[in-house]
Amino acid sequence: MSTLDTFTGWAAKAPGAPLEQYEYDPGPLGAEEVEIAVEYCGICHSDQSMIDNEWGNAKYPFVPGHEAVGTVVRLGEQARGLKLGQRVGIGWHKSSCMHCASCMDGAHQLCPTVKPTIIGGNGGFANRMRAHWAWAIALPDNLDPSLAGPLFCGGSTVFAPLLELGVKPTDKVGVVGIGGLGHLALQFLNAWGCEVTAFTSSLNKQDEAKRLGAHKVVASTDSAAMKAITASLDFLMITASADLDWNALMATLRGKGRLHFVGIVPSAIPVHVFNLIPRQRSISGSPVGSPAIMAQMLEFCARHQILPQVEHFPMSETNAAIQHLRDGKARYRVVLDASK
Amino acid sequence: MSTLDTFTGWAAKAPGAPLEQYEYDPGPLGAEEVEIAVEYCGICHSDQSMIDNEWGNAKYPFVPGHEAVGTVVRLGEQARGLKLGQRVGIGWHKSSCMHCASCMDGAHQLCPTVKPTIIGGNGGFANRMRAHWAWAIALPDNLDPSLAGPLFCGGSTVFAPLLELGVKPTDKVGVVGIGGLGHLALQFLNAWGCEVTAFTSSLNKQDEAKRLGAHKVVASTDSAAMKAITASLDFLMITASADLDWNALMATLRGKGRLHFVGIVPSAIPVHVFNLIPRQRSISGSPVGSPAIMAQMLEFCARHQILPQVEHFPMSETNAAIQHLRDGKARYRVVLDASK
Repeated sequence: MSTLDTFTGWAAKAPGAPLEQYEYDPGPLGAEEVEIAVEYCGICHSDQSMIDNEWGNAKYPFVPGHEAVGTVVRLGEQARGLKLGQRVGIGWHKSSCMHCASCMDGAHQLCPTVKPTIIGGNGGFANRMRAHWAWAIALPDNLDPSLAGPLFCGGSTVFAPLLELGVKPTDKVGVVGIGGLGHLALQFLNAWGCEVTAFTSSLNKQDEAKRLGAHKVVASTDSAAMKAITASLDFLMITASADLDWNALMATLRGKGRLHFVGIVPSAIPVHVFNLIPRQRSISGSPVGSPAIMAQMLEFCARHQILPQVEHFPMSETNAAIQHLRDGKARYRVVLDASK
Repeated sequence: MSTLDTFTGWAAKAPGAPLEQYEYDPGPLGAEEVEIAVEYCGICHSDQSMIDNEWGNAKYPFVPGHEAVGTVVRLGEQARGLKLGQRVGIGWHKSSCMHCASCMDGAHQLCPTVKPTIIGGNGGFANRMRAHWAWAIALPDNLDPSLAGPLFCGGSTVFAPLLELGVKPTDKVGVVGIGGLGHLALQFLNAWGCEVTAFTSSLNKQDEAKRLGAHKVVASTDSAAMKAITASLDFLMITASADLDWNALMATLRGKGRLHFVGIVPSAIPVHVFNLIPRQRSISGSPVGSPAIMAQMLEFCARHQILPQVEHFPMSETNAAIQHLRDGKARYRVVLDASK
């Protein structure tokens, strides 16, 4: 277990720029922090958004990466529950205050001062990274560490609402978008016991969706197929990041049904109360899960061997990996291997 | 207990017309129906909407009224659970199929063929009216029948979501609009144990809101007061029927907070996912309650002596009563007395 004075990562030095090797001083280790030697790091769409400064809050040089798996190499004096050498993952968040009402209620992801890993800090496209001990989540032994990275952001994003919003195994659930998030949602929901319908823009991915756990596949552009499932779903999860025909999608919800967003849809959704009141429907959204939910997710993944479908790139070829993602070619998540 | 061949009510004969006395043949009593002798009937905003054919589905002559209290005078052969002479109320719905998935699940209000009392039929501005036995809800002995009528529509509309959506006594809840619905919501929420904030367009109704159960009153137009309650509410019920500053109202919701609509807001609400995802918020709506919820509401009202604040008009002065409502003068619900 070496300690390092400086970390070495891959940084964007300006909006949209290719990443370059970059050495940086992480400063002293916080008392409640842990430091990990990164083994693998997934690439999420929001890494690309931050590289491009889409949200206007990026600071450069900037090292992306928030789906990291690695082993604990340093523990702050007050760090709890982890051991040196233990394998953990670090996702979208790296710290929270631990004492606000949300943190004390187990909803650390809603802490007003929760810190995203890659906003105002450097992430996992590097040899080392740090997080508060609470946000370094132990990886079960029987989950392949080379595949598990994307669970810590993408996985937790689609798993958390199933628990938080009380999705039941008897529910009929739809998933819109079969990508980094959606391909995990299909697997989770199948193991959750639900009847699972995948919505795709075309039927090209039909066999793939069924292999991932969908019982039915519906092309959302096929108005006859959409009409056939009117008022049939309890829960419809939007993992796509596009403006869709929300009225048509709402119409698939039965009484008490919920349209739930985890994808960042660009435009405001026009919601008329006539779409809510008579059938007692909800529209909602959620971020990634709390540490407790992430731990439950990993245990669930281990029991059912749910893992992302991954393409590996050496971390030395980070720019090629990002281009692969930009080209829309990722099936379904790219993971960087830090050893290469 | 007399039986009548014809009913006598007050009907609009054209959109927006004054009501006129009107005699009509109700046809044979259905096997599962009950007939009541109307004693009192509240006037709801939707009676006015139907008189004016605002929703395009009115048929004339049309007898409004769906907040009726009276005594059972006839029972169909298959009518269950009610006795001749028993005092009941009939609200927004008068029948449902009793065998669909929603009905069998106790959510009769979501039955695809649920029949609203005043859509395609005649209501309670009359000496008699009918409903399926399931929708004629027994009135507890210690609730004043001359005041209880508005509970069967307005009351059930604001009570149902507290039960259905799991509002907890520890929650901080806001109510927007202090009218027919809102003045009942304040009373329910106070008895529910919540911290209750009333939102008004001005502070004119401040003392009234506190008397009804609000712990705090906030003028929604006062941006400093609105800012002071940022991220503090768990649940915000919109009883107003107006387009409001939804972003400002959403900002009052804490993590996992819910904006809930029971008022018919005219325009679509523009909902951006950035208002939903980071704080894990929901937007929803609900209609009136099921028969089971209405029975629970009445028991709750009896225990806490929750009743609408009512102005009485003789039924013979129905047109003056409707004009009072149209003038925005109702404080907070008008009830017609059928004996006068």
